Amino acid sequence: MAAGLVLSIDAMGGDAAPDIVVEGVEIAARRGNDARFLLHGDPALLAPLLARRSAAARVSEVRPAGAPAIGMEIKPSQALRQGKDTSLWNAVAAVESGEANAVVSAGNTGAYMAIAMFRLRMMQGVHRPALAARWPGAKGGYVVVLDVGANVQADSEQLVEFAIMGEAFQRAVSGVARPTVGLLNVGAEDQKGHEEIRGAAKLIREANIDFAFQGFVEGDDIAKGTVDVVVTDGFTGNIALKTGEGTARLVGQLLREALTSGPFARLGALIAYPALLKLRARMDPGSFNGAVFLGLNGLVVKSHGGANGRGYAAALDVAARLARSHYREEIADNLRRLAAAHSSAASPAAAQDAS
Amino acid sequence: MAAGLVLSIDAMGGDAAPDIVVEGVEIAARRGNDARFLLHGDPALLAPLLARRSAAARVSEVRPAGAPAIGMEIKPSQALRQGKDTSLWNAVAAVESGEANAVVSAGNTGAYMAIAMFRLRMMQGVHRPALAARWPGAKGGYVVVLDVGANVQADSEQLVEFAIMGEAFQRAVSGVARPTVGLLNVGAEDQKGHEEIRGAAKLIREANIDFAFQGFVEGDDIAKGTVDVVVTDGFTGNIALKTGEGTARLVGQLLREALTSGPFARLGALIAYPALLKLRARMDPGSFNGAVFLGLNGLVVKSHGGANGRGYAAALDVAARLARSHYREEIADNLRRLAAAHSSAASPAAAQDAS
Repeated sequence: MAAGLVLSIDAMGGDAAPDIVVEGVEIAARRGNDARFLLHGDPALLAPLLARRSAAARVSEVRPAGAPAIGMEIKPSQALRQGKDTSLWNAVAAVESGEANAVVSAGNTGAYMAIAMFRLRMMQGVHRPALAARWPGAKGGYVVVLDVGANVQADSEQLVEFAIMGEAFQRAVSGVARPTVGLLNVGAEDQKGHEEIRGAAKLIREANIDFAFQGFVEGDDIAKGTVDVVVTDGFTGNIALKTGEGTARLVGQLLREALTSGPFARLGALIAYPALLKLRARMDPGSFNGAVFLGLNGLVVKSHGGANGRGYAAALDVAARLARSHYREEIADNLRRLAAAHSSAASPAAAQDAS
Repeated sequence: MAAGLVLSIDAMGGDAAPDIVVEGVEIAARRGNDARFLLHGDPALLAPLLARRSAAARVSEVRPAGAPAIGMEIKPSQALRQGKDTSLWNAVAAVESGEANAVVSAGNTGAYMAIAMFRLRMMQGVHRPALAARWPGAKGGYVVVLDVGANVQADSEQLVEFAIMGEAFQRAVSGVARPTVGLLNVGAEDQKGHEEIRGAAKLIREANIDFAFQGFVEGDDIAKGTVDVVVTDGFTGNIALKTGEGTARLVGQLLREALTSGPFARLGALIAYPALLKLRARMDPGSFNGAVFLGLNGLVVKSHGGANGRGYAAALDVAARLARSHYREEIADNLRRLAAAHSSAASPAAAQDAS
């Protein structure tokens, strides 16, 4: 085995773990994701699953967890106090120790964030980590939206940090050399929106942040794919994400009702079935699964708790691409520009003295 | 003609005015909306349209406007300075003078809000007006979401005012006797979200606001129709509305692409065509057109600028139902409860002295 990539997996996290997790590793391994996988969890459950999945077995190593998995009802503070030696805790620790390049879990989001923050700490120059999600856009690619729930509020500087991290993440995952970036607002004009957003736009321009900034975008620009990266605070991002998901689900439900509403509708749907299947695949959250906590000293990928094996494999792909990229080096320069602009704005006198 | 309802119409506002406006009046009149209509605008354009629309002509009266219509590019402040004797201005003035029961326009939203605020003023007990939109829900009805853009921020008391107004509006338009109300948040637990939202939930409970309050709801609850009224600040509401619209449009576009992607898909779509048409009607913004500025001394309905005749007729229906309801009387009691709770919270000593 090459010295290549190592992904640390919380094999017990998620609605259908560990089955779906091992299935995801199998799919990823067969597809040619040439990483090695550390499966943290219960060996008594994992061994029989691996016995049936030869591709997964070849690239996996089981790491026994001493404590039962963290449930979905556990609060972040409890997870920090009682989470030691769980599969989630150990999976994160393998990144901290340098044994693995990235960690993936489909478990309790709050507990995962808390443990990852506590073990890996924030990167220098970052004030708050952000949760970044991927979203299907009209142009065929996926739009990165962040923050979608890590922080309910964000000041101008934090919004710019999110923009810097989101842009590098989009490049790492999509391969687009110079992703475009927009700030989510209620209008495109300069005077629109909160003080924090207007301040962020000003800061990006004044600090000469090096990326393709397109100014303000609106809610409908997410699905249009007007820009590659949409930046917002965690409150607005979470509500936008869930409103979009809810709307897509409603349209899907109404379409199913329409296509089963009578014999002609059913016949038509049957004939058009292959095309409808392709549509479903395009809208299936599984195909673009893999949210990421950006801003920590370590790569932390979150799979949707209800993802199937194919969805889990998509999250593993996101982790592998991110680990193979130069994400952290790429954001360092822009974070330095931001810090310099901010400190000179905060204390113009001090800046003058130093010059 | 009975002494009944009078609707004041800005016949020159909207992308395809005045044609679509007169078509909307024709549809409403034929459907049995037994209001009388004051059509403010250019008689030279309106007369030939009414000559071809006999039902509209029977119930309409043309009111010549002395100034050309306010364009979409005009800022609210300009509209206030230069808007006099335009069709929009005169349409609002007819409500102020008591000649009409409600005003409808599909024109420039910012100009409309500014003129309506200036002429009609805020209702007693209301600090800011709100823009309320209707949204198709999974259960077959329409969810009212407010504020969707009148104010970028809202404190706890303003959110409660929005809730009070939105509940009465939903009852007036849908006929549901006791609509349920939720506050839009990033989770259902008490400790989630901004201080303003937590404060609003507390205020609703402490002030004994008389409506069916269901606590916090999330973004996906809008399309699910979990509650009948979703309350939020204008920034979040605007972004949620546009994200939902954008997502629905994207799914529709992908469905069209799928159903024209080959001969079988096209044949299937042809056979299922009547069912697909019904789906389109359900998702068509025209069928639930009619946002409302709530909180003014007068009923102010906004049609979508791109609505067709049927969509415009839907906005006219919203105006008629609202005008026939007891919307203003209904919210008075709850606004009094809120004001009492707020003043006793603000000055507990004064409240004690008074008792």
